[in-house]
Amino acid sequence: MNSLSRPGIRELGTLFADGSLSPVEVVQDTLRRIERLDPAINSYLTVTADLALEQAADAESEIRAGRKRGPLHGIPYAAKDLLDTSGIRTTVGSRIRARHVPSSNAAVIEKLDDAGAILLGKTGLHEWAYGITSTNPHFGPVRNPWDPERIPGGSSGGSAAALAAGLCVFSLGSDTGGSIRIPAALCGIAGLKPTFGRISRRGTFPLGHTLDTLGPFGLRVEDTALTYGAIAGHDPSDPASVSRPVELPALELEPCLKGTVIGVPSRFFFDRFDPEIANAVGNALSVMEGLGVELRTVRTPDVEAANSLHRLILLAEAASVHRRRLESHRTEFGDDVRALLDQGRFVLATEYLDAQRARREFCREFDSVLLDVDALAIPAVPIPTARIGELEIEVGGKIENVRLATTRNVRALNLTGLPVLSVPCGFRGDGMPVGMQIVGPKYGEAGILAIGHAYEQATDWHARIPPMALKSASGTAPEAP
Amino acid sequence: MNSLSRPGIRELGTLFADGSLSPVEVVQDTLRRIERLDPAINSYLTVTADLALEQAADAESEIRAGRKRGPLHGIPYAAKDLLDTSGIRTTVGSRIRARHVPSSNAAVIEKLDDAGAILLGKTGLHEWAYGITSTNPHFGPVRNPWDPERIPGGSSGGSAAALAAGLCVFSLGSDTGGSIRIPAALCGIAGLKPTFGRISRRGTFPLGHTLDTLGPFGLRVEDTALTYGAIAGHDPSDPASVSRPVELPALELEPCLKGTVIGVPSRFFFDRFDPEIANAVGNALSVMEGLGVELRTVRTPDVEAANSLHRLILLAEAASVHRRRLESHRTEFGDDVRALLDQGRFVLATEYLDAQRARREFCREFDSVLLDVDALAIPAVPIPTARIGELEIEVGGKIENVRLATTRNVRALNLTGLPVLSVPCGFRGDGMPVGMQIVGPKYGEAGILAIGHAYEQATDWHARIPPMALKSASGTAPEAP
Repeated sequence: MNSLSRPGIRELGTLFADGSLSPVEVVQDTLRRIERLDPAINSYLTVTADLALEQAADAESEIRAGRKRGPLHGIPYAAKDLLDTSGIRTTVGSRIRARHVPSSNAAVIEKLDDAGAILLGKTGLHEWAYGITSTNPHFGPVRNPWDPERIPGGSSGGSAAALAAGLCVFSLGSDTGGSIRIPAALCGIAGLKPTFGRISRRGTFPLGHTLDTLGPFGLRVEDTALTYGAIAGHDPSDPASVSRPVELPALELEPCLKGTVIGVPSRFFFDRFDPEIANAVGNALSVMEGLGVELRTVRTPDVEAANSLHRLILLAEAASVHRRRLESHRTEFGDDVRALLDQGRFVLATEYLDAQRARREFCREFDSVLLDVDALAIPAVPIPTARIGELEIEVGGKIENVRLATTRNVRALNLTGLPVLSVPCGFRGDGMPVGMQIVGPKYGEAGILAIGHAYEQATDWHARIPPMALKSASGTAPEAP
Repeated sequence: MNSLSRPGIRELGTLFADGSLSPVEVVQDTLRRIERLDPAINSYLTVTADLALEQAADAESEIRAGRKRGPLHGIPYAAKDLLDTSGIRTTVGSRIRARHVPSSNAAVIEKLDDAGAILLGKTGLHEWAYGITSTNPHFGPVRNPWDPERIPGGSSGGSAAALAAGLCVFSLGSDTGGSIRIPAALCGIAGLKPTFGRISRRGTFPLGHTLDTLGPFGLRVEDTALTYGAIAGHDPSDPASVSRPVELPALELEPCLKGTVIGVPSRFFFDRFDPEIANAVGNALSVMEGLGVELRTVRTPDVEAANSLHRLILLAEAASVHRRRLESHRTEFGDDVRALLDQGRFVLATEYLDAQRARREFCREFDSVLLDVDALAIPAVPIPTARIGELEIEVGGKIENVRLATTRNVRALNLTGLPVLSVPCGFRGDGMPVGMQIVGPKYGEAGILAIGHAYEQATDWHARIPPMALKSASGTAPEAP
């Protein structure tokens, strides 16, 4: 294990329980780190320091009094700024909402409140969550802790960057076309997009209502599993919410992948793949094999065709969400988002409905691939991490659009609604992390979390500290966390 | 009770069980009636006489051998010609499909097959089920047995007309914008549109996939309940199918409506209501009160606004279903359907999605009205029955579009997905039947069937024989059924 790795939720919980560490100390320490490091990263839009210290003091008393609520009690987290927080402004990364203060909490915030987790603040995102760079025209770009000149990915870039830089212990994001998995991969952390309908979206600003899924980021798979367990479950007030019981993996057992079959879909391994990323993912698959996994090449339906369906569906759904706002506040939208919304205005209903019908066909075929294997392994982002402001990038001698190339392997999976875990699986020579997706069958979160956890136990890519966070103001390695 | 009324499913079942009547006799007799009466009504597109006689002989042997499968065993029925029937042509009322023979049965046909019901044939409908007159340009108009110069309503006109004329014992229809309830009302029979998702639509030709609902017609509420019990239930192969257990009313008990609260939504009682229909529905409400029902005026959201949402959603969904076919076979569509499909081509995705969003709001408000009452009573068709070919009709001194005025009180209820039963509640002076809708809460089929049954026991409007069916070829009253 990496000696510089940072403690996770379970370790902190143990320290809280035996009294050797207090939530107040962790929150104070984290607030200091935010003050020191976040000016260079810009991951938080709002830091709720006083509220967090208050909550931490409450958690400390409750835990000392022997009333520990669960694994998240006293653990500080950050929430993407499209989740409503009562009394705390929620901007959705938009100038139009720069001063918007909701009067109630999103369902997930409520659940974390009940679990005793401590909200540190609200994190930056791509404007209206509609993009993958998190280069926000109103609040400035969120920067990648592994290289502040590069994007952290998006749209949940702030939540991923904050966690990677040690500015929280876990965080929340949302994923409509890769918005959890891309920043997880680019920031070197774990991110879980659960099955569509698993987590209530009440109080969440929508982007594409048949695609939007909330989920957790963690430094470890275990942390995403513990957070997922706290926020998943049925909510009748979200029409898409499902009532199936939530299953969690037994991560305390010795990981065992013997007999596990993982499909490797050739269609997600493109010609123009960055060779270093291909190499890292290849090594990850070898590690899996070493753990007893049987790898099997599988054939999925066409990914590029599915990506076009995703594009059309999202163009239309997002344009519907913003139609009136675009008319009344046209100049207050950033250029890239306005251009996408304008495109969406002209999608015909028949095109949209045809795309939804083709989507159902794609899902049926994709689901059937998962009948024969336990999970699929798919590279997350197949190209190097773009620099901030960069719109095109050269991959394998060809110029590619950053947005399209970055999302190539993630978007189609939102069509399926299947659960996907992204785990760190190495670094490129430029020092930037590489991520791999583990895709499970519908409601198969427990299975992919168990696979990701076992892989993580055998590797050393997780819970790393980026160089910029190592070089703390005092010049010493940062204390935990 | 009306001495001329016809026997229902339960009565026939008793006669089958004690050997005093055989399914073969009933089928033979019904086939003779079809031969004699249907040339004037045009309710069947295809009569499967040989197959029906074969099935009847099988049913007879099984029942004689003491192997009665259930209440529908040996009972002959008719199916709307958009339900796939293996080896039997299924036209959907279109010239394009005039020779189309499916290779498998729709889920509901399978279920009725298993229940031992006997398919007599496939009934006429509005072309592609997209209209409410059943005046079909390719197969001729279906005629109303109560007055062959008038429409039977639609789109399930053939199923309703066949049943009203005694050409089957029960029948199946589908309802996207009133297509079960309108013909039930205009033909003087009972019709049930169950909750959206209750009955599998596998093997059913779609019209508007977020609206389409299958359901039964019966001469009595009890018959619709027995049929509903046989065809409802979860089917994973229909993505909209729900897995909630199906509840049936205990109709064998003495009906009791004491303590039942029925809401009367003023917004469904228009200024321009036909006074005779208003009178019939008013009398029905008085009968209900006499049975111990408490009537309560309730306020629903705006119906006309909801009707516009329904129009827009259906225009788009139907245009998506037929887009390619309209391009390749343009001239083979009837004028009215082609015009609707052409309109649907230009609906924008944002308009469609905005309408779906407004629909969810309408549903929430409508559902909340049903929290305070057990059911709602709403007139089915608020205008006199149109003559075949009539596009406009005078109601209260004002000229109205037949299509819009006929559907005014039924369409909005498809948006809600709520279960609705239409029961006969009187006649106009012109001899045409009047129907009333009983609307229940989601999955509340058992409740509205019990209310409808109790009302029926106290009245004399059901299972009547239209004059044209009385005047049989031999000049005598027809034998049962």
